[in-house]
Amino acid sequence: MMTLVSYDVSTVDAAGRKRLRKVAKECVNYGQRVQNSVFEVDVDYGTFLKLKDRLMKIIDEEQDSLRFYYLGNNWKRRVEHIGAKETYDPEGSLIL
Amino acid sequence: MMTLVSYDVSTVDAAGRKRLRKVAKECVNYGQRVQNSVFEVDVDYGTFLKLKDRLMKIIDEEQDSLRFYYLGNNWKRRVEHIGAKETYDPEGSLIL
Repeated sequence: MMTLVSYDVSTVDAAGRKRLRKVAKECVNYGQRVQNSVFEVDVDYGTFLKLKDRLMKIIDEEQDSLRFYYLGNNWKRRVEHIGAKETYDPEGSLIL
Repeated sequence: MMTLVSYDVSTVDAAGRKRLRKVAKECVNYGQRVQNSVFEVDVDYGTFLKLKDRLMKIIDEEQDSLRFYYLGNNWKRRVEHIGAKETYDPEGSLIL
């Protein structure tokens, strides 16, 4: 089951920057970074719920947000890539 | 029809930074920014093809990349938002 995880974490203070690092670190454990704060997570639903639960415990829901796009199992026909096969790796590792 | 448009444009030189601005500007005309370089574009297929064509003409396919996630018409059940309702507006306007 492929889910796109996108997040916006407020970085106005040190606590926010720490939350951002923790959110990114969790996502790197479960999926591939596609964009600076967008991950493709292709795991079973139970594993995804674990990730979601951990992310929800990290963020401050007053300031930060998570956005999940459920692409389902038959997701390959829903994704189109054009251009360079980039390795996007500001902090984590991603091979597209 | 909802499509998530995600892009990675190389900004190592002035030409790349110009391409990035142009790509963002095009996307702002058609959709809502969700992340720094991620837009939700909810338009009919013909209009989407116009956007896609324009984006493909802007990017340098050797260095840059576009990634489209086709969420279809029944997309609302595919998207889950948790946390703050942010206005994400580094350059464009977005109200979630």
